[in-house]
Amino acid sequence: MPGNSFGQLFRITTFGESHGEAIGVVIDGCPAGLKIEMDFIQQEMDRRKPGQSFITTQRKESDRVKIISGVFNGKTLGTPLTMLIENKEVREKDYENLKSTFRPSHADYTYHAKYGIRDYRGGGRSSARETAARVAAGAVAKMILKKWKIALLAFVSAVGNVSLKKDYRQLNLKLTEKNIVRCPDRETAEKMIALIDKMRRNGNTVGGKITGIIQNCPAGLGEPVFDKLQANLAKAMLSINAAHGFEYGSGFAGTLMTGSEHNDEFIRKGSKIITRTNNSGGIQGGISNGMDIYFNVAFKPVATLLQKQKTVNVSGKEITLHMKGRHDPCVLPRAVPVVEAMAALVIADHLLQSKSSKI
Amino acid sequence: MPGNSFGQLFRITTFGESHGEAIGVVIDGCPAGLKIEMDFIQQEMDRRKPGQSFITTQRKESDRVKIISGVFNGKTLGTPLTMLIENKEVREKDYENLKSTFRPSHADYTYHAKYGIRDYRGGGRSSARETAARVAAGAVAKMILKKWKIALLAFVSAVGNVSLKKDYRQLNLKLTEKNIVRCPDRETAEKMIALIDKMRRNGNTVGGKITGIIQNCPAGLGEPVFDKLQANLAKAMLSINAAHGFEYGSGFAGTLMTGSEHNDEFIRKGSKIITRTNNSGGIQGGISNGMDIYFNVAFKPVATLLQKQKTVNVSGKEITLHMKGRHDPCVLPRAVPVVEAMAALVIADHLLQSKSSKI
Amino acid sequence: MPGNSFGQLFRITTFGESHGEAIGVVIDGCPAGLKIEMDFIQQEMDRRKPGQSFITTQRKESDRVKIISGVFNGKTLGTPLTMLIENKEVREKDYENLKSTFRPSHADYTYHAKYGIRDYRGGGRSSARETAARVAAGAVAKMILKKWKIALLAFVSAVGNVSLKKDYRQLNLKLTEKNIVRCPDRETAEKMIALIDKMRRNGNTVGGKITGIIQNCPAGLGEPVFDKLQANLAKAMLSINAAHGFEYGSGFAGTLMTGSEHNDEFIRKGSKIITRTNNSGGIQGGISNGMDIYFNVAFKPVATLLQKQKTVNVSGKEITLHMKGRHDPCVLPRAVPVVEAMAALVIADHLLQSKSSKI
Amino acid sequence: MPGNSFGQLFRITTFGESHGEAIGVVIDGCPAGLKIEMDFIQQEMDRRKPGQSFITTQRKESDRVKIISGVFNGKTLGTPLTMLIENKEVREKDYENLKSTFRPSHADYTYHAKYGIRDYRGGGRSSARETAARVAAGAVAKMILKKWKIALLAFVSAVGNVSLKKDYRQLNLKLTEKNIVRCPDRETAEKMIALIDKMRRNGNTVGGKITGIIQNCPAGLGEPVFDKLQANLAKAMLSINAAHGFEYGSGFAGTLMTGSEHNDEFIRKGSKIITRTNNSGGIQGGISNGMDIYFNVAFKPVATLLQKQKTVNVSGKEITLHMKGRHDPCVLPRAVPVVEAMAALVIADHLLQSKSSKI
Repeated sequence: MPGNSFGQLFRITTFGESHGEAIGVVIDGCPAGLKIEMDFIQQEMDRRKPGQSFITTQRKESDRVKIISGVFNGKTLGTPLTMLIENKEVREKDYENLKSTFRPSHADYTYHAKYGIRDYRGGGRSSARETAARVAAGAVAKMILKKWKIALLAFVSAVGNVSLKKDYRQLNLKLTEKNIVRCPDRETAEKMIALIDKMRRNGNTVGGKITGIIQNCPAGLGEPVFDKLQANLAKAMLSINAAHGFEYGSGFAGTLMTGSEHNDEFIRKGSKIITRTNNSGGIQGGISNGMDIYFNVAFKPVATLLQKQKTVNVSGKEITLHMKGRHDPCVLPRAVPVVEAMAALVIADHLLQSKSSKI
Repeated sequence: MPGNSFGQLFRITTFGESHGEAIGVVIDGCPAGLKIEMDFIQQEMDRRKPGQSFITTQRKESDRVKIISGVFNGKTLGTPLTMLIENKEVREKDYENLKSTFRPSHADYTYHAKYGIRDYRGGGRSSARETAARVAAGAVAKMILKKWKIALLAFVSAVGNVSLKKDYRQLNLKLTEKNIVRCPDRETAEKMIALIDKMRRNGNTVGGKITGIIQNCPAGLGEPVFDKLQANLAKAMLSINAAHGFEYGSGFAGTLMTGSEHNDEFIRKGSKIITRTNNSGGIQGGISNGMDIYFNVAFKPVATLLQKQKTVNVSGKEITLHMKGRHDPCVLPRAVPVVEAMAALVIADHLLQSKSSKI
Repeated sequence: MPGNSFGQLFRITTFGESHGEAIGVVIDGCPAGLKIEMDFIQQEMDRRKPGQSFITTQRKESDRVKIISGVFNGKTLGTPLTMLIENKEVREKDYENLKSTFRPSHADYTYHAKYGIRDYRGGGRSSARETAARVAAGAVAKMILKKWKIALLAFVSAVGNVSLKKDYRQLNLKLTEKNIVRCPDRETAEKMIALIDKMRRNGNTVGGKITGIIQNCPAGLGEPVFDKLQANLAKAMLSINAAHGFEYGSGFAGTLMTGSEHNDEFIRKGSKIITRTNNSGGIQGGISNGMDIYFNVAFKPVATLLQKQKTVNVSGKEITLHMKGRHDPCVLPRAVPVVEAMAALVIADHLLQSKSSKI
Repeated sequence: MPGNSFGQLFRITTFGESHGEAIGVVIDGCPAGLKIEMDFIQQEMDRRKPGQSFITTQRKESDRVKIISGVFNGKTLGTPLTMLIENKEVREKDYENLKSTFRPSHADYTYHAKYGIRDYRGGGRSSARETAARVAAGAVAKMILKKWKIALLAFVSAVGNVSLKKDYRQLNLKLTEKNIVRCPDRETAEKMIALIDKMRRNGNTVGGKITGIIQNCPAGLGEPVFDKLQANLAKAMLSINAAHGFEYGSGFAGTLMTGSEHNDEFIRKGSKIITRTNNSGGIQGGISNGMDIYFNVAFKPVATLLQKQKTVNVSGKEITLHMKGRHDPCVLPRAVPVVEAMAALVIADHLLQSKSSKI
């Protein structure tokens, strides 16, 4: 099947090029009777929108979401819920010079190779603008998760070599939105902002890591053996532009532990069974066990530099490219709501799927 | 959809519990006319089978593959290709004590929570035995890839804190199968073997990393935006038992680079366009660019220890568990063909999907 | 998976309620490089639009299609192609009386039972207005079929008890669009029109049959055993509002023949193999054989009457309903392009699927 | 996706050629905890098996079902449930003459055209033998339906020109299994048997109709707009070998009614809302309304004749074919359990899907 849909029972299809008329998303499978809070959706969009601070692109998009189907008198109908986001700031002429250029580490060359045609205006479909549609859909998924009291939080845990030293359990995650880089530790946040700003001034860019936490997820989500919960989270995260890695629970560091260090002992806590440690990251055998699910996503530095670069054009001629304009020196702050959205989509989908586990 | 199928056009469905009659796989969508080499399939199975060396479990399974449909006169019919692998060594009594126990960091508790019933004999469906079916299917996928001259190689790059220092391009990957740990550097391999043996003697276990390489993959594979090639590789790898992390190209280390260091400059090489460096890991915008695809998979240490552990039983009572028997002190050597199989399935599927990209 | 998508590789998702802001469709999987003729799409829409003659509803909708993604410089990008059709004539107050009424033989009761909520304005999602989105998508599918020189034609073969006596091979199918009922035999068409007009004047409605023909379809389309070509055509047709039956080839009449009468003898015609008769309707074993594919679809009479009817309301109270307004006395003339669209979607999808049959 | 799977949440994949080692089915998505009654499964198989009376083929197959995964201690595990049926009576030499012949109205030519290779022994994958796997899976689906007290009955309503004159509501459906043709009216059954016997003696074949009834189906099943309940039933039925038509509710005869005759008035019956008539066939807007679902399936006469026929061979040469052996003169009696199985699969799948309709 074509690649623009995600999820099985709570299923989204996103569409739109960055410089076309609009981008948007159809959610098929949203249960009926869910109250839709437009303010909440917009608030999520605002966390992702460009121009929100001096360390993001200064491109201006209001990113207003318009629901054109699936909602009636403020509630979902059980029919496809469609959201549109118009592309306001489309400056055609800016992009004419990219028509025949393959920008390094962008999707220009591969789209050309695959489709024989591409919308060269700002990346077209390959632009990270597409993730705005994911955030809109994720906001709806989050409304479902709220019904189950599942909380979902992400934050920036590293920018370049500046990284949080504390475990998420030692942090006050309510502070994430208190600074423009979305790191819940103020001191680290300031260093991250300084680093991004330095990159910005040099026309350079920097990558980093986002940590995601899913709290109060019921035991029993995940569909072995291929739709293990972590497998779908991994796919969700790696489908985000610039993501280059995913780990959950003990992750790559867990490879350094022995089994006796790594195993999570089961214990009783009141009437519940929990684990003393949580190296499993809340998932065992591909199924949630009721403990916190936590994971990291690695993002490479943004490919759009404001420095001179060598590359080739469509004719295969080697050229020098010097891009200008308004670009993100670091994608991390704006990617936090995207990571949350993708995680919300995965969990909402698996919640619906889990209804069929038992007779 | 239920979770036992993987792939869209080259689609496998695996089945079977570790201690049931048999495990197996149905491949639906295998193109007709492919010559099936049974020897090759069996050779792949032998790389995964238990008892192959002193650092793997001493459980004995011949893992003979029997094709019961989809092949006629040695060639695929285009109909479902079904392979069965009998479970020979099933000792029912060994597992009686696990009936009511939730083994730490296994799937016992979560299967119980999800399904209300489980096959407690050796993990049932959650056992890594299921991956034998993947290797069989992967062998068929590899035969397709051979037609396109795509090579697919994996090797153990770390066991606990013993890791390969060289980049894969500095190694002779033909040496991978020359030692029992499947590390192409002899010296490192010996250290790995020693470490695993030490663990084995202590009744402990250890994790590690496997690196996978896909060479000569044509440009144009991958279906943006959700079925990006790396997203499906990530899902494939995280669906393997004990896998806790995935990274491709520059991966987590890429978060420490600046954009100007990370970007892969396009250059001409004869009539082809290639990149000078390959931090992109052969994939840009979710689509292969013709360069090597390479990735790492992190595996946690095996959860089955031969040491005493605390846990709880089905009634929630805290107990002490002391498992015996024949288990892998390290899953890595036997997971190499599994990683290759999953990668082969992803690439074969995307090859077929790519046929519809252009009019 | 939720029910608003159709097709595997050429996959559409329709959305929108009849009295919401807009209806529309996302096509995912349309191959890149297809030239999009807007005039042709609009022409197809006009064949379905209301108000086109005195035997259809007098409701006014211009049904202008706007493409908002997936097309660049007049060609498809290989990305999701989204088409929007605004709902112009939305008179909210007209529908207030339907809020609590279950109209006989409509979807009011079942949507209420399933979702617990419904958009009662003109049927909402259950309205045949949804089929406008299918026609738009079908027009794109037809452009693909043209590349393969596949022709696709449908016509009205019966209205109530007035039916075409001739076989489609005896008719000049170019005459279909020459009259308002879309029956290629002028004399029969006139009788059909008279019957519909009589129904209209009585506030009553009438059903009928549509015949579809697919010419020049290559041999080899269809995916046994469940995605047989006729199975997907049957599903496509039965998904159209008011459709109650489907038959292909000899159909129900074929049950009266013996095997020796029914079997289609293979013969040579130049270098091709064809069949002397075509009771198989161009499909054998679920796969096209190169002969004409032909089928009939039965449509029940429209459920919206302008006569008094008994029914119950949401509270279960028995009431008398007297609907007014502008409605179709017969759905057949406007359903012809819908039947064609659904057939085109099936064939285009199977064309893409057939690319993977052989190695 | 390849065509050997059916259903979304209760999903089957069948495999096997008629003269291969075995045929079988994997059910993925069967809820855990269902008690499996092997006797019932076998009883269903016996209704379909060859050799059950003098009006069916005299081919001998015991069709014993063996469950090799997914069931533990008599209950489903929620993991893939796999059933195998060995092909016992495989006489290779019988089929050598079919190697290069395209039998009229069989799938020989189309499989050849599509795949370039075929298993010519008895039809291979295109043989109706594949439906045995469907009956096995359908038996499991029926066990689920029993939990909801949904009854599912089919019977032969026509053989050639001998047809039941009574409506199903006037018949005692418990009599269906009392005669070898599976028609619940004894007098009609005798005429049908006589007709089939006459055909058999002439080496000829005859078609007919099967009527299916689904009773006590809850309101709310079906996923508009493409997965309407009738659309999936139509697909299910048209995927059965030799099926050429499907109609539900008023069907093709409904095209002769006016809207005022056809509409089903809603009435109160105790606390329930029912319809006075049931021309809708229990489905409105693609969703079940709680009334009986009923439908007819048309079957063409069996293509295998024991008379001389003209045809062409693989080289395109015109030849005369004279088949011998043991074949069904009429497929109807053995197709009854297949129709029931396919209906059961559709309903079970939609039952599971309906769990996600509301928040």
